[in-house]
Parts: sequence; C-alpha cells; structure tokens
Amino acid sequence: MKQIKRTKIADALKSTDFGSEINIKGWVRTRRGNKNVSFVALNDGSTINNLQIVIENAKFGDEFLKPITTGACINVNGVLVQSQGREQSVEVQAVEIEIYGTADPATYPLQKKGHSLEFLREIAHLRPRTNTFGAVFRIRHHMSYAIHNYFHERGFYYFHTPIITASDAEGAGAMFEVTTLDLTNVPKKEDGTVDYSQDFFGRQTNLTVSGQLEGELGAMSLGAIYTFGPTFRAENSNTPRHLAEFWMIEPEVAFNDITDNMDLAEDFLKYLIRYALENCKEDIDFLAKMYDNELLDRLQFVLNNKFVRLTYTEGIDILEKSGHKFEYPVHWGTDLQAEHERYLVEKHFKCPVILTDYPKEIKSFYMKQNDDGKTVRAMDVLFPKIGEIIGGSEREADYDKLMKRVQELGMSTEPIWWYLESRKFGTAPHSGFGLGFERLMLFVTGMTNIRDVIPFPRTPNNADF
Amino acid sequence: MKQIKRTKIADALKSTDFGSEINIKGWVRTRRGNKNVSFVALNDGSTINNLQIVIENAKFGDEFLKPITTGACINVNGVLVQSQGREQSVEVQAVEIEIYGTADPATYPLQKKGHSLEFLREIAHLRPRTNTFGAVFRIRHHMSYAIHNYFHERGFYYFHTPIITASDAEGAGAMFEVTTLDLTNVPKKEDGTVDYSQDFFGRQTNLTVSGQLEGELGAMSLGAIYTFGPTFRAENSNTPRHLAEFWMIEPEVAFNDITDNMDLAEDFLKYLIRYALENCKEDIDFLAKMYDNELLDRLQFVLNNKFVRLTYTEGIDILEKSGHKFEYPVHWGTDLQAEHERYLVEKHFKCPVILTDYPKEIKSFYMKQNDDGKTVRAMDVLFPKIGEIIGGSEREADYDKLMKRVQELGMSTEPIWWYLESRKFGTAPHSGFGLGFERLMLFVTGMTNIRDVIPFPRTPNNADF
Repeated sequence: MKQIKRTKIADALKSTDFGSEINIKGWVRTRRGNKNVSFVALNDGSTINNLQIVIENAKFGDEFLKPITTGACINVNGVLVQSQGREQSVEVQAVEIEIYGTADPATYPLQKKGHSLEFLREIAHLRPRTNTFGAVFRIRHHMSYAIHNYFHERGFYYFHTPIITASDAEGAGAMFEVTTLDLTNVPKKEDGTVDYSQDFFGRQTNLTVSGQLEGELGAMSLGAIYTFGPTFRAENSNTPRHLAEFWMIEPEVAFNDITDNMDLAEDFLKYLIRYALENCKEDIDFLAKMYDNELLDRLQFVLNNKFVRLTYTEGIDILEKSGHKFEYPVHWGTDLQAEHERYLVEKHFKCPVILTDYPKEIKSFYMKQNDDGKTVRAMDVLFPKIGEIIGGSEREADYDKLMKRVQELGMSTEPIWWYLESRKFGTAPHSGFGLGFERLMLFVTGMTNIRDVIPFPRTPNNADF
Repeated sequence: MKQIKRTKIADALKSTDFGSEINIKGWVRTRRGNKNVSFVALNDGSTINNLQIVIENAKFGDEFLKPITTGACINVNGVLVQSQGREQSVEVQAVEIEIYGTADPATYPLQKKGHSLEFLREIAHLRPRTNTFGAVFRIRHHMSYAIHNYFHERGFYYFHTPIITASDAEGAGAMFEVTTLDLTNVPKKEDGTVDYSQDFFGRQTNLTVSGQLEGELGAMSLGAIYTFGPTFRAENSNTPRHLAEFWMIEPEVAFNDITDNMDLAEDFLKYLIRYALENCKEDIDFLAKMYDNELLDRLQFVLNNKFVRLTYTEGIDILEKSGHKFEYPVHWGTDLQAEHERYLVEKHFKCPVILTDYPKEIKSFYMKQNDDGKTVRAMDVLFPKIGEIIGGSEREADYDKLMKRVQELGMSTEPIWWYLESRKFGTAPHSGFGLGFERLMLFVTGMTNIRDVIPFPRTPNNADF
C-alpha cells in the first residue's frame, strides 16, 4: 500500500480538502450496501461520529471484502469527497484497503443490535468500542483534564499522597489490607495475633480511603495543593452508587476558611460543567438522547443558579416542617440520606445547596469545632439527582482542641503523630474538600450506574480485567 | 485586624504597586535584626523566594514578637515598599500582625541550620517546608501538568486502568496482595490452600505492576490513550533507585509501529525537559546550585541531541569491543545494567540512546516478535546518569503468535482471556511505553535518591505518614 500519513476521523470530518488523498484507519461499526457498492461506517475513537468509506465491490472482489464486518479493523487509502448523503458531510472513496484484523460475526459479541449495559459490563474489554462508552470515556478524559487545568491556573500544586498507608485515622470506611505475608501460613506472635514485623512494611498497612490528612501537610507548606488519585473502600455494598476502587479529587488550602472553601467548591463545579458543555458537546448530546433527556437541563440548572447556603440545623428544620413522607425519618442529629438532600435541592430550593455546620457526632475528628460545642464547620454540596457531590470542612487548626477530640473518640495518636504535629508547628487556618470523580461523572454523563463511568469497575466479587 | 485580600508571595515579589496596603500570610523561615527592627523572611510555598517583612519592634513590643521564630505561621497587614537591600526587590513594612501558629524552637526540628536529606526523610511531614523539597514538589507538579498537557494536545485520552487486579500476567515483579480476609484466621480449603472465594473479590487480587494490558484495550477502541497512576512492586530492594509505590505514565497508541513509538518517546521527553526549563527555572537553579552543578548541562544535553537509535545487538557489539572493564560482564543475551547503558550514552555516543530489538528471552510475552525468531520489537530509552528512563515496544498484534508465546512461557491464559481477545477481534498494530515518573523527577531535579522526589516514599519497613 502507498504510504500516506494517517488522518484521524475527527479531523477528516472537519476537512474540506476534497479530492485529496487520505489515509484512514479504524474499526468497522457497520457495513451495508448492495451488489455494486459497500458503505462502511468506520470509527477510530477520536470522535463519536463515524466516517463513511465507500467501496466499489468490483474493484476489490467479494472474497477480499467478505471479512470486512462489524468489529474488523481496516486501513484505507482513498480520496476525500463531499458526501451525497445527508447524515455526513464528507466520505472517503476507497482506493486501497488493508485488513488489519477480522472479527468473526459468529463470535464477536458487539454486533449491530443494541446491548444492555449489564451485558456490556461483562465485556468491559470491548465496551469502549461502543458509542456509549466511547462517549463516557472521552468525557472522563476531558473532566480529568479540566480538573488539572482548574487547579494549575489558580496556583495549586498536584500533590501525590500515598496509596499504601498505615493510618486508618479517617475512619471513613472499611479498608483493604495490603500484605506480602504468605496467607497459607501467616506468622503469628505468641498471643496469637499476626506478626506484622515480618510483613513488607514491618507493620499492618491498608489501601488509603482518602489523601486528605497527607494533603493537609502539603497545604501547610506549599500553600494550596490538590490530590487526584485512587481511593478504596472495602464495604460489601452492591449498589449502583458504590465502587471498591474510585478516584477522588481533594484540594486543600492554607488560610482558607469555610466561606472560601464554599466559594472554591461552587466555582470549581461550575467550571467543570461549563468545560464539559463546551468541550464534550457531541458526546453529551448523544448520551442525553440515548439515556437521559433531562441531562442538559440539569447541567444548565447547576450552571445558572447560585448555590443556596444554609446550616444543617436550618435544613433539618425545613425537612421536618415539609410534611413530606421520607423513607428514613429525619431529625437533628441524623445523617442525611440522599432523599433528604434531593428534597432540599429539587423540591424546596430548586437550586444546588451547600449545607454547613453539621453535628460533630456525624462528622470526622479533624473538622473545626464551632463555639456552640455541638457542631463542626463541615460543608456538603448537594446536587439534583446525585445528592452529596462534595464533602469538606474547615479543619481544626488548634492543637489542644484537636487532641481533645481525638481523645474523646478514643483514637490512637500513634498512627497520626505527624498529623498532630502539623498543628504544633506553625499551624494555620485551612480548609478543603473531596469530590468523588465518579459521582461527578454520573452527573455529567447522565449514566445511572457508577460501574458505567469507570473503565474497569471493582465491586464485590468482581476484579476481572 | 483589617480585612485585606491575601496576596501570594510569588505575586507580591513581582508587584510594583509600592505604597499600597497588602496582606501576606506565610511561615517564618528566619528572623534576624537588632533592638529596633526585625527582619522576617516569610515563605508561603508559592515560590522558593522569601518576602522580607520589616517589623519595628517598638510598634508591637518584644513580648508579642517573641514567638515569631523559625517555623511560626503569621498573618501580616503592611505596606509594600521598594527594598533597600540587594537581595530582594520588594519588602513589606508590617502594620498589623497576627500569629496563627508558633513553633517552639526547643522542639521544632527545622531550625535554620542545614539538615541532611536522610534526616529530612524522617520528618517527611515537615520537609516540604524546606527550600529543597518545596522546589522538588513544585517541579513535580509542573512535570505532572506538562504530561497531561502533552497528551491532551495530541488527542490522547487519559484512561484510568485498575489498581486492584487479578492478573499477574505482566510478570514484571513481586506483588502486594490485597485482601479483606482475617489474617489471624485465614479460611482454607480442604487441600490447605487459601479459600479466596471468601475474599472481597472472590479471588486472589494484587496491586497492579502496570496498567499496560488494560491500556491496550483503551488504545484498541479510543485510538490513543495514556495512563498516569500509581504502580507497585513488592521487591525487598533497599536502594536509592527503588520504591514499593511509584507513579507511572504509559501511553498506548493504535496504529503506531516501533518507529512511531520511538518518535513519540523522544518528542515527549524533550517536551517535558523544555517545559521544566521554561516553567521551573528558579527551583531548578536552586537545586543545581545546592546539589548538582551539572544539572543544567545534562538537561540541555538531552534537549539538544537527537537520540541515537541502534539495535541491542549493535549495542552489545560496541560494549564488547570497548575494552572497558564492566562490573557485570556483557554478551548477547544478557540484560543490560545501568553501567552498560551509561557507557553507551556518556562515553560512546555522547547522546541519549534508544536501543531496540532485544532478545525475546529478556523481554515480556506481549512484545512483537521479529522474523528472526530471536528478538522482539522492544525499545529502551537510555539517559545519562539514569540509564533506562523509558521501556516500551510494539505489541504482538497477531493472535496466533501471541498465543504461541504465552504457551511457550507456560503462562495461564485464564487471567488474560480479555487481553487475548483484543487480538481476536479487530486486532491492529499498536505500540506503547512506560515512563517511571520518579525516574523522570530524578533526572529533572538532579536529586540522587528516589525517596527525595515523592512526598511520602514507601520502601521496605517504611510506611509512615
């Protein structure tokens, strides 16, 4: 075949260089036609749109063309021409074709007909070749990029907090243990407990549930940092909202108080949604059409409304007086369920909501204690459909108050001696929050199962691929 | 105190708005002066440079000023003035001061005197407050950002491959096991082996050693992807070159052959080094001055030289004929040691080198087999001082050849059924490589111990913080 530099389909579709030679490579989505001519819809992942390849059957011979079926990969030299059809602006008339790889129609699972999302999860190695998952994973890229851009432009440093950790101080959930011990023959001490001195790190270690505690150390030196990495929960929750392995973004900023923190969270979320609308329009339009016709309205709803800010106490008051029947009863001191959060956002305020000043008993030890002795300077950002999308707080900067809380909760200070020292030496007010990346992805794509917004989901009894 | 919007020190130092009110917050690096006036060098992490705060002692009183010692955190309202001293262009005359946090000189470990890097590793929670680690972690941020930019601008998608995996097919090294089993009482099957059906994922799982295999699935659908995430090795190696947890970047591109792959690697590395020189000048200059006066030359050396490309066989020939005495003997079939790689780069070619076509026995099963039956289309990029900085290959796209190699090596096909299917359905030529992020960081910063380029290193017997 003649050597011609490859053009990506996304670029070819925008080209007006009609009559020029072009090389296109990609995977066959469909092939149709008649005795004389074949029309191949080719996709190379660069865009959701296919490029039509027009093939004169006689030129290549039926035998040669036979393996060009759905899923096959081909390399085409041809001529770019203006399309006669209405659906596409350009097409390519094939001059030379090389077949890179076939896909036997008897065994290739992705035939033309639609597939259930459940079925596609079982073939996660092939599902990025579908329109739906091509769109989702392109959006996932753009959202990741937007996150890095947002923080970089504002002088935050990307700070890599550890994945393997010996501190379980967050208390955020069940953890996976990390070990090199031989599980068929675990070494024990005389009292029958595991002898972790023989383990790789000489102590018990786990997969992190949050990079926040280490992130705070970054903020207390570099000023403003963010993390963006995998986090883990070993909860046996088989729901559309839970993953055992998920990605989290956690900014942490020295000298920010809770109001600065709320401003940052609101500005950040609006930036991301605006970025998605401006940079992922075709993919979002496709997902809206296929799965969720209210998707664009919901994105605009967040963009166009100022987030309402009120305290947890005020929120509880509204819920109690609402007369609405909730599945879970609600009163001061209870943790809010998604139904309560969504009621405030969707029914009462018709705005995104930021709730602050939660009871200290339902929040973590590190949050700044208010003078009332009952509440802490926490903030949760609540979205339509999703409920909580961001959780954060101003942190307790006072060493004595922090130590008192640690002791009240009966926590061991040994695993967090370094965290406590950050309050002992040059402490400062600071705040931060966590955004679950897949929660954001659910909101932006309109998908309803969290397993459909990450390439290879990890859930109970599922670590395939 | 009067409410004035905070100015970062990086911005204040560039300001010429003399006479204006300004608010500065940061950590005290040093305090010197005399009976009448104190000079505080303040740093807030936004730059390696300190801002001088000038304090009239009488205005505040000695008792108030006493706790303003190295490590303390203060909040200053003042007036920006042109500096009288030679070292700084601007300084701030303090009007109001709030002390956020003290740092008792009797216990604060970071006093003015220099500290060894070994000592600073033991206080990794505080070392980002030093000039050295501030510089290193700012550079780390800029390199991360440059990596995302490079790929984004070229149409690659950031693809999140899983951290917890059941496939150990890479064979790249010892692995950490991930489990929720109770190690004091591991459930066993009748034959005495561990009953993993009771584990979280219903099977044995590990921390990934590479995202490549899953990354290839991304490339075979989205066209061009890259990973950038943590990877793990459970090797008991206590050396300045090994971490148990490190970050890796792995681009993978459909339709790229080995030459495209070499072009990408060379262009990518030069982009990153150029980016560092253009965006991290002050921090690199500091590290060069303190640790490595050849650092800038070495960076320019890579930028200004075309990478020499030759085969492994040619490289071995040069080494054998060199007459140089190597610690490890070298002949065709041996894996190259850093001393051999550095000889080719530093002594023989005086250029960065890309070696290709290694013996198949010393490379992974997935590499494209050459027609000679002996070598595979591997490529390693070799740098001065570092040795191998990138390893990659064109991948074996032919299902039958790949299966034959898997069987020759006695590998189980069960854990990689999905990988094999990527060659069964619409296979295509494709290539990729891996860049160890901390290797790059060593090269760019001139640091010599890999524990000094990641915030919280994980090594045998060390998982603190």
